[in-house]
Amino acid sequence: MTDPFFLPVSGFELPRFAGPATFMRLPHLTPDHPRVPEVDIGLIGVPWDSGTTNRPGPRHGPRQMRDLSTMIRAENGATRIRPFERATCADLGDVTINPSDIQDSMTRITEFYARVIGQGIRPLTAGGDHLTSLPVLRAVASMGPVGMIHFDSHTDLFHSYFGGTMYTHGTPFRRAVEEGLLDPTRVCQIGVRGSTYDREDRDFAASVGIRIIEIEEFHARGVDDVMEEARAIAGSGPTYVSYDIDFVDPAFAPGTGTPEVGGPTSYQALQVVRALRGVDIVGADVVEVSPPFDASGATAYLGVQIMFELLCMMVQSDKH
Amino acid sequence: MTDPFFLPVSGFELPRFAGPATFMRLPHLTPDHPRVPEVDIGLIGVPWDSGTTNRPGPRHGPRQMRDLSTMIRAENGATRIRPFERATCADLGDVTINPSDIQDSMTRITEFYARVIGQGIRPLTAGGDHLTSLPVLRAVASMGPVGMIHFDSHTDLFHSYFGGTMYTHGTPFRRAVEEGLLDPTRVCQIGVRGSTYDREDRDFAASVGIRIIEIEEFHARGVDDVMEEARAIAGSGPTYVSYDIDFVDPAFAPGTGTPEVGGPTSYQALQVVRALRGVDIVGADVVEVSPPFDASGATAYLGVQIMFELLCMMVQSDKH
Amino acid sequence: MTDPFFLPVSGFELPRFAGPATFMRLPHLTPDHPRVPEVDIGLIGVPWDSGTTNRPGPRHGPRQMRDLSTMIRAENGATRIRPFERATCADLGDVTINPSDIQDSMTRITEFYARVIGQGIRPLTAGGDHLTSLPVLRAVASMGPVGMIHFDSHTDLFHSYFGGTMYTHGTPFRRAVEEGLLDPTRVCQIGVRGSTYDREDRDFAASVGIRIIEIEEFHARGVDDVMEEARAIAGSGPTYVSYDIDFVDPAFAPGTGTPEVGGPTSYQALQVVRALRGVDIVGADVVEVSPPFDASGATAYLGVQIMFELLCMMVQSDKH
Amino acid sequence: MTDPFFLPVSGFELPRFAGPATFMRLPHLTPDHPRVPEVDIGLIGVPWDSGTTNRPGPRHGPRQMRDLSTMIRAENGATRIRPFERATCADLGDVTINPSDIQDSMTRITEFYARVIGQGIRPLTAGGDHLTSLPVLRAVASMGPVGMIHFDSHTDLFHSYFGGTMYTHGTPFRRAVEEGLLDPTRVCQIGVRGSTYDREDRDFAASVGIRIIEIEEFHARGVDDVMEEARAIAGSGPTYVSYDIDFVDPAFAPGTGTPEVGGPTSYQALQVVRALRGVDIVGADVVEVSPPFDASGATAYLGVQIMFELLCMMVQSDKH
Amino acid sequence: MTDPFFLPVSGFELPRFAGPATFMRLPHLTPDHPRVPEVDIGLIGVPWDSGTTNRPGPRHGPRQMRDLSTMIRAENGATRIRPFERATCADLGDVTINPSDIQDSMTRITEFYARVIGQGIRPLTAGGDHLTSLPVLRAVASMGPVGMIHFDSHTDLFHSYFGGTMYTHGTPFRRAVEEGLLDPTRVCQIGVRGSTYDREDRDFAASVGIRIIEIEEFHARGVDDVMEEARAIAGSGPTYVSYDIDFVDPAFAPGTGTPEVGGPTSYQALQVVRALRGVDIVGADVVEVSPPFDASGATAYLGVQIMFELLCMMVQSDKH
Amino acid sequence: MTDPFFLPVSGFELPRFAGPATFMRLPHLTPDHPRVPEVDIGLIGVPWDSGTTNRPGPRHGPRQMRDLSTMIRAENGATRIRPFERATCADLGDVTINPSDIQDSMTRITEFYARVIGQGIRPLTAGGDHLTSLPVLRAVASMGPVGMIHFDSHTDLFHSYFGGTMYTHGTPFRRAVEEGLLDPTRVCQIGVRGSTYDREDRDFAASVGIRIIEIEEFHARGVDDVMEEARAIAGSGPTYVSYDIDFVDPAFAPGTGTPEVGGPTSYQALQVVRALRGVDIVGADVVEVSPPFDASGATAYLGVQIMFELLCMMVQSDKH
Repeated sequence: MTDPFFLPVSGFELPRFAGPATFMRLPHLTPDHPRVPEVDIGLIGVPWDSGTTNRPGPRHGPRQMRDLSTMIRAENGATRIRPFERATCADLGDVTINPSDIQDSMTRITEFYARVIGQGIRPLTAGGDHLTSLPVLRAVASMGPVGMIHFDSHTDLFHSYFGGTMYTHGTPFRRAVEEGLLDPTRVCQIGVRGSTYDREDRDFAASVGIRIIEIEEFHARGVDDVMEEARAIAGSGPTYVSYDIDFVDPAFAPGTGTPEVGGPTSYQALQVVRALRGVDIVGADVVEVSPPFDASGATAYLGVQIMFELLCMMVQSDKH
Repeated sequence: MTDPFFLPVSGFELPRFAGPATFMRLPHLTPDHPRVPEVDIGLIGVPWDSGTTNRPGPRHGPRQMRDLSTMIRAENGATRIRPFERATCADLGDVTINPSDIQDSMTRITEFYARVIGQGIRPLTAGGDHLTSLPVLRAVASMGPVGMIHFDSHTDLFHSYFGGTMYTHGTPFRRAVEEGLLDPTRVCQIGVRGSTYDREDRDFAASVGIRIIEIEEFHARGVDDVMEEARAIAGSGPTYVSYDIDFVDPAFAPGTGTPEVGGPTSYQALQVVRALRGVDIVGADVVEVSPPFDASGATAYLGVQIMFELLCMMVQSDKH
Repeated sequence: MTDPFFLPVSGFELPRFAGPATFMRLPHLTPDHPRVPEVDIGLIGVPWDSGTTNRPGPRHGPRQMRDLSTMIRAENGATRIRPFERATCADLGDVTINPSDIQDSMTRITEFYARVIGQGIRPLTAGGDHLTSLPVLRAVASMGPVGMIHFDSHTDLFHSYFGGTMYTHGTPFRRAVEEGLLDPTRVCQIGVRGSTYDREDRDFAASVGIRIIEIEEFHARGVDDVMEEARAIAGSGPTYVSYDIDFVDPAFAPGTGTPEVGGPTSYQALQVVRALRGVDIVGADVVEVSPPFDASGATAYLGVQIMFELLCMMVQSDKH
Repeated sequence: MTDPFFLPVSGFELPRFAGPATFMRLPHLTPDHPRVPEVDIGLIGVPWDSGTTNRPGPRHGPRQMRDLSTMIRAENGATRIRPFERATCADLGDVTINPSDIQDSMTRITEFYARVIGQGIRPLTAGGDHLTSLPVLRAVASMGPVGMIHFDSHTDLFHSYFGGTMYTHGTPFRRAVEEGLLDPTRVCQIGVRGSTYDREDRDFAASVGIRIIEIEEFHARGVDDVMEEARAIAGSGPTYVSYDIDFVDPAFAPGTGTPEVGGPTSYQALQVVRALRGVDIVGADVVEVSPPFDASGATAYLGVQIMFELLCMMVQSDKH
Repeated sequence: MTDPFFLPVSGFELPRFAGPATFMRLPHLTPDHPRVPEVDIGLIGVPWDSGTTNRPGPRHGPRQMRDLSTMIRAENGATRIRPFERATCADLGDVTINPSDIQDSMTRITEFYARVIGQGIRPLTAGGDHLTSLPVLRAVASMGPVGMIHFDSHTDLFHSYFGGTMYTHGTPFRRAVEEGLLDPTRVCQIGVRGSTYDREDRDFAASVGIRIIEIEEFHARGVDDVMEEARAIAGSGPTYVSYDIDFVDPAFAPGTGTPEVGGPTSYQALQVVRALRGVDIVGADVVEVSPPFDASGATAYLGVQIMFELLCMMVQSDKH
Repeated sequence: MTDPFFLPVSGFELPRFAGPATFMRLPHLTPDHPRVPEVDIGLIGVPWDSGTTNRPGPRHGPRQMRDLSTMIRAENGATRIRPFERATCADLGDVTINPSDIQDSMTRITEFYARVIGQGIRPLTAGGDHLTSLPVLRAVASMGPVGMIHFDSHTDLFHSYFGGTMYTHGTPFRRAVEEGLLDPTRVCQIGVRGSTYDREDRDFAASVGIRIIEIEEFHARGVDDVMEEARAIAGSGPTYVSYDIDFVDPAFAPGTGTPEVGGPTSYQALQVVRALRGVDIVGADVVEVSPPFDASGATAYLGVQIMFELLCMMVQSDKH
């Protein structure tokens, strides 16, 4: 059984609004804490939005997600999984990024994750904008390219912005493919929609074998059918799951920098994660939660519910 | 025909934003008003949240629900029922609860409702947190246990909180069964979801025969099928309807203390009430509307629409 | 090809939050600008809410819709239409209405639109409350009655308010039929719902042949089936499209004066416009966006997405 | 002593958030209520903003001011006056204005006030935009011109707007002087500031003898000195007090349509009213509270505190 | 020098928005942490509002105050005090109160503080409503009555509410005097204002020798003069400082349950604390910060600045 | 007289909420517009916040400031200056910064300003965070160092952040002194306050001769006395005015990233600018307005009022 040290404080003992906030009321371990090596899954914040080309704010995501995550209880009502009893989980704090230097920040993120992964810990990340996934993948895929199931209203596969800027939240997976971090034939993007500049991203996807399931196809086929295909694409190999909160319709997730209307409901937002059973998840993230555009906290609240569903899937993987 | 005294002021005469706000622009009758005995259905506020274990606020519910209820017009667009012409309705004011004493408040509530019911009035309540339903049921079920159709994302069937606290908004129906106010075999709970502490509430429900239709089953079967079962469970006996606004997805009803994502839409929120035709409704409530977490008023607005749908069902009962 | 002068500024060059805001980043042409005659489709604001009988605010709609429209990119992701390359589009500014005089304002609006239409420009309007459509139709239908596809939760077909007031946002289409601006047998209203004063509007509709598809029918039949009927009603003749943002459920479009719960999703909100292919659209509007009730801007954002979908349909009409 | 029927409900008995909201928890008497003739001072709402040339919203003022006025207790802490025990006060409801017709509304307002004043009741008004004061003055000054002490950041003395529109919230006192309702030599305007179109209003004031104390003079001289002069100008004759909430700095009163920065504090906002001792107040109003621009309710809350201070001055007048 | 373990993380190293939030970025020590005995001053949260008779919310105060306290840097700009280097400070977490049981909660609070004080730690509290001060004083004054300097717009000296309820946020200091926790002749209350029920509290104060400096006197005399008197009243004995955030004008501190207009500015709010030099502060609190009524966080932000000023005064006391 | 082309549209003709928003309703001239050379004073937006080390948002400043600047009228009420008739003014649009590259953005800004200044136009800037002032000064001071009057709650004189990052909003004037853009003996900083990391910035100021007037001195001496000294420091040479909106107390200007409580009122915020008469202003800016933290727009509104006061001072300079 899990050591009580690693169990969340119960809301029956301490009310949910009380106490300093950590992810899901787990213990907060600084990098040098002696019990870090016991951890199986580490919840990590990346308070960073230097890749944002439009409305900033995700740097505040981890703080608000910690706050609202204290509403999460011990057991998943739908799947009956009790993740904190099946794996040793902890809040590993935030990466100490540099808000004024993109390259410096990316180096810091990769180093943080490389150290964590080197201790046998699988990371579950609260971003941060979507550029966060690139330095994380540099650590996650250090042994070879991984597959990816990617929920988003954008492909994030563009070449560059503003006359040659290569590192923005619209380019991380273009870079990841170029750097050999992703196996594009094992990548599936779900929920893409909205107006577009052009089709340069789609052409790139087609050229390397990335499968894009646009929202019209998603709505027409339904969650079960779409996710069966996604699982098949990812296959049995190591797979990263990247979840941009703007995948969900802005009525359910208003607090994000580049919302696109016409998306899935919150119920579908959970269902797609529950359909990841059997996938070998080597890491996951929830990104683009932007508290300044989310006065009520509804977006961060949905974001942490998705993190909880991801966690429940991560503890089910046989290999870990 | 209804005496014009009991008809709401029309928005064609006085704009909807004008005038002191009463429920649905009905006359406000204080308890000693001489025309109280003429009333068939009394709309009552219970401005109380002392049972709240998490985020408070429902004490402000009746005030804001009165405000937004002035948007309601004379006729139900879907069912064509004109409730104010089929039954004599009035705003009976708020119960004078004591915010600093739970037991005192429960006594006050039960006494208020006993007096109302003693005058032949069926109550339609605007809460207040869900503990409100317990003292109301003590008056409603004074002649014997009633059935209940209960819309909620939580069962509210827990034994106790915080080391033995028996009266919270998470325990009212456990108490109601223990006190013989509810016939558990005639109780159906719909919409339950979210993470849970444990399964102590579900075990209790199973042991006494309460039927729980969780949200996954609700989404899979649809409103018509689920509600047919609910009506069968309630049967032809006297039935209370309790509607926690957190039944609805927080995108449609953000202003509540313990929201759970993945719920029904506002259209489904109305449909489930319209499906209560034929049920012998002896009382109903809409609870957990929390204005401090509902800056736009959208939740109170949906709440009063649900109250209006409940009212339209209450006027259809043959026995009353 | 379109002259670069008439192409929106790309977000790859100038970030979307930068620069003075015009509709969709198109050039703003004052009425006397020498290039006005080149324009095919003019985007026009009518900052006016004097017809509002309830909560005011749509006078602020054009300003906020311009602001949020800078998020729109060159190509429709669903239909792949690039409207700015298929038609010459421009922001023609706002009509200089008089907030203190309804009749004066209606005259100013009709004159503005008559001049625009006289230059061969089809108008796409950002309202304003729904009374806006009446003076616009007086210009659009100057050559004879037009058909109309009308998305709304209200019929706006009432005779009068407040003891004889004939010009409010609840009466424009009653007046338009009376004035011979609309051919009622070619009018289809979709999405009507909510409580009603009485059935005077529905009786009028029935008497002149207007088809009303209420929300229950909409939800039961689905977008494709309903819109096939709507296209058939409009037929091949000149047709106006009027889109009241309160057609959409208030979870997706909270910022409006008279919301009605139980409406379509944002995805359906877009689908119904995409289903207008083949309709001969001689003008269109999006009305009742009310920024003071829309703190987050979500409603204006959805409103401009709908304007973009309407624009994509307008550029497809063969006759223009 | 005052009949208990006319005393506000105490917050020690019923919590302040409970019960339908009336002004200061006084009884709400409809115009035909038999006890109206007993009333000395009537609190009246005018939910109207048709005179607004900029941002609308004051039509919602009376509703929100009633709501927040339930925070007011029995005794003025500074002056120790207990107004409800010194005069018979009641909430006389709202005037049934017509939001779509300015002239009709002005007629309705004047008739309502003429009837009230004819019963010997002095009116204390919650507006409404500042045009409200004109039809009120037509009733108040029916026996001859009155003096006025006017707190505002604008003079509201302009001739017309938008090419000849004579009735807006920027013109009421120009009309009132023209109509002989005000004796301009007994009028003092305090707090005027902000950028201006031109000096047409100031020139008019100078020509008829209205004294304007601009904000720079107010800040330099202080409340006591300024108010001594104001009292001297008003003299011992009948005097109306008109209080535009935008007199106060927008940090203290953000919810108004045309705020001007650099104004008095909330403490000064109260002090100027307390300095009205000895003035023969025949009526008073607080106008331009605009709830849609006042999410927190702070402006309405300050507005009702000012109404309470005005009430305390009105009960002190010897003549009434 | 202070052990680096007890120094706040610098914003030059980790951006202020990053990392789990503790009070002023100090280490969070659970009650059983081995380094607790080293602490001189403990920052403690009491997330509790069961004493609130009006608008609830202060239970959320400690969480939001921790969040915003990460903006505080190492040195007081005005006094140049660097408190974290002059005393060993730590975040001791929140008391595990019971939101559904007032007496149980008061017992828990007193026990928590008794244990802390028993370890030689002086407490600096973030409330919580003002009833919080009573159970804290039971621990602080366990050796004998203390003096108190009390900033507030209310006296909190009432006997009871709602027909005999003795423990509310309007009664703590009546109880504290009765229980011998306060020496009333060494108590000074500053800033009292607003409308009142009656003068029962003032009469009690006069009868036991409590000095009340109402806001009119405060504004007339100024901070320096008033505070000189306050220091003289407190004298050289052990003194508690209780700071209700509603002391400050609601323009500066809107997020509180019972605001009173006409109060001090934020600059005065700081000055009064800086004037406590020489007072022997045995404990202090900042209470009534209510996040649900403080959407922007401004109130919590001012609250933590006041806590920081209090901390700077506490480290200067010679005796500790 | 000024060509009508360069006069703002009057609110008497077009309501203030109507029309696309430009700064103060001036004509918007793109860089290649043929009438640019006629301009005396150019209003320019710099939508940029890459220098922000804490809460981002100022990139949205120019958009919202344009929106709210439409409330400004032709004449300064306090000084009676009509600036648009004394100088030719225009909105020159926004600099096309690159949100993902600080150095690239600084180059773009300097080039834009160099071109503008080369045409004889004095710039009045709406930021942007405070790093904006550095690239602007590189253009303004291209002929030699200038003096500066600087309103701010921070010195912005730090050496570096995060282990060597030299270009942030906390360092611009350190760089400007190092680069010879400012004559430190002619620099006066006013309003500095709040907690500090250390005194490294103050030590630097002292070493080069910058005069810092902290807030305690400001409050003690008053506006007139302080500004007389500031004018003396700046002398008769060319002087830049930099106005960080966080100079003002956050009750008046909440929408900024690093607010500091205890600051000046809005009236003082205007007075300090009016006291710049006689200063030879070669350029000015208002920076750090952050709309995401300013839901009501109050901060942008105050910001544009300050811009208007600056403009009125700029048109008075004899030399220009």
